[in-house]
Amino acid sequence: MRFNERLRSTCRKKGSFLTIGLDPDFDRIPSFLKKFESPILEFNKSIINATSDLVCAYKLNMAFYEQFGVKGWRSLKKTIELIQEDTLIILDGKRADIANTSGKYAKSVFEELKADAVTVNPYMGGDSIAPFLEDESKGAFVLCLTSNPGAKDFQHLSVNGRHIFEEVANKANEWNTNDNVGLVVGATQSQFMKKIRNIAPNLPFLIPGVGAQGGDLEETISAGKNSENEGLIITVSRNILYQSDETDFASKSRAAALYLRDQINTHLSSAKINHGT
Amino acid sequence: MRFNERLRSTCRKKGSFLTIGLDPDFDRIPSFLKKFESPILEFNKSIINATSDLVCAYKLNMAFYEQFGVKGWRSLKKTIELIQEDTLIILDGKRADIANTSGKYAKSVFEELKADAVTVNPYMGGDSIAPFLEDESKGAFVLCLTSNPGAKDFQHLSVNGRHIFEEVANKANEWNTNDNVGLVVGATQSQFMKKIRNIAPNLPFLIPGVGAQGGDLEETISAGKNSENEGLIITVSRNILYQSDETDFASKSRAAALYLRDQINTHLSSAKINHGT
Repeated sequence: MRFNERLRSTCRKKGSFLTIGLDPDFDRIPSFLKKFESPILEFNKSIINATSDLVCAYKLNMAFYEQFGVKGWRSLKKTIELIQEDTLIILDGKRADIANTSGKYAKSVFEELKADAVTVNPYMGGDSIAPFLEDESKGAFVLCLTSNPGAKDFQHLSVNGRHIFEEVANKANEWNTNDNVGLVVGATQSQFMKKIRNIAPNLPFLIPGVGAQGGDLEETISAGKNSENEGLIITVSRNILYQSDETDFASKSRAAALYLRDQINTHLSSAKINHGT
Repeated sequence: MRFNERLRSTCRKKGSFLTIGLDPDFDRIPSFLKKFESPILEFNKSIINATSDLVCAYKLNMAFYEQFGVKGWRSLKKTIELIQEDTLIILDGKRADIANTSGKYAKSVFEELKADAVTVNPYMGGDSIAPFLEDESKGAFVLCLTSNPGAKDFQHLSVNGRHIFEEVANKANEWNTNDNVGLVVGATQSQFMKKIRNIAPNLPFLIPGVGAQGGDLEETISAGKNSENEGLIITVSRNILYQSDETDFASKSRAAALYLRDQINTHLSSAKINHGT
């Protein structure tokens, strides 16, 4: 099955458009876990056990593992092995290089780490992304518009009256011949999200930045949903992961995830009532 | 010492502006090495022993190691440990993310892997690059203009009569408050290299693409050198690494590296004769 169809089907089956960012910060995980040989793996295991029925995917940002070198890569691989088959795995590495080299990255994330999708950086253009799209069952979310201050440096520059991020959305559409391309669109820029949705009506959006980075959930969903009132997944990390320093941390994370899942579903279905009739 | 000064001083001391890309392709390394436990590490060791007096730096593209997962990261770390202190280590990972996350990547490449410099992708803007520049003794080469076909997709788009890659060069100049920013400029686009040199007269250029990607060395050097007839390093991988499938492979690589080092020096000094008086 092609990746975008897998994503759609997973969201529908699990009734969730929520993704948890498994980006464990050693300084913020409960202190009692630090007696374990791999505190980060223990932390991830508890979070996954407590939340896997509530999410369509887990997103693992590779930087949080790479900071610990070989040991971190081992935790990354072992964390992925803990995730059950009904839940997708998105590796957030924002990689891309010349085609031959991107092929090695694709091998790394899809074959070696067994991810279902990755995030990629568009700066080097189509041939740097193509190796991530060869296997139609695997997906690539192309960085389009991000929610950090630096987004203004290049993404907002204007080419013939159109922003660079719109050019990226347009190209991503062209690259989507295997129905496995998505876009990363930051939640703090929801005034631009509608523009991107118009350019790419069928691409799934991976939306970070709700919460810790300040985006408003309802506005984001209203602007980002597709014509079927879906087509987006919201990824949240810190606002779910760090709810308690005690042994109840995982159940508190579950409560936070449950609340967010339901909020997202409410906003998606109220969008349906508002615009669908 | 600030990174750009370290680079300048290393090039002068060693009389070399050549960088070898240690990007070992398992299918192309001599077959007799494949009996070793880590053929790639054996290969790298032989190449380093045979060439370390001829290069200012080794550049390791992370994808070539990551394709082997945990084992690949171990080879990457062990390869770096083989490189002597008089030679710089550039990790080519083309990373960048929101600031907090880029900080983890910076920790990974500079503290965990002990590299001297990295390559970074500018798409997410200034705050995504800043964490790589905090330690002034470490450097970051910002992707500016690459030599692959996809460079035309975004890098060549025109904003107010100026290409996006010129905007990147301009921003990189602004970011260079610690004298530790460089630019990646592909050798096949030397007609644009002069433009970039004019925008960023003092930034060192890391130039890939000579040879396997088709750039012409003399033209590249003439267009890319700074006013002191230096300010660039040329990185070559396949055209040095794969010279023989026999036990003489390392000495043949040495011969190829020696030839290239001397060619680069000749072109730099003839540039001096042509333009310096």
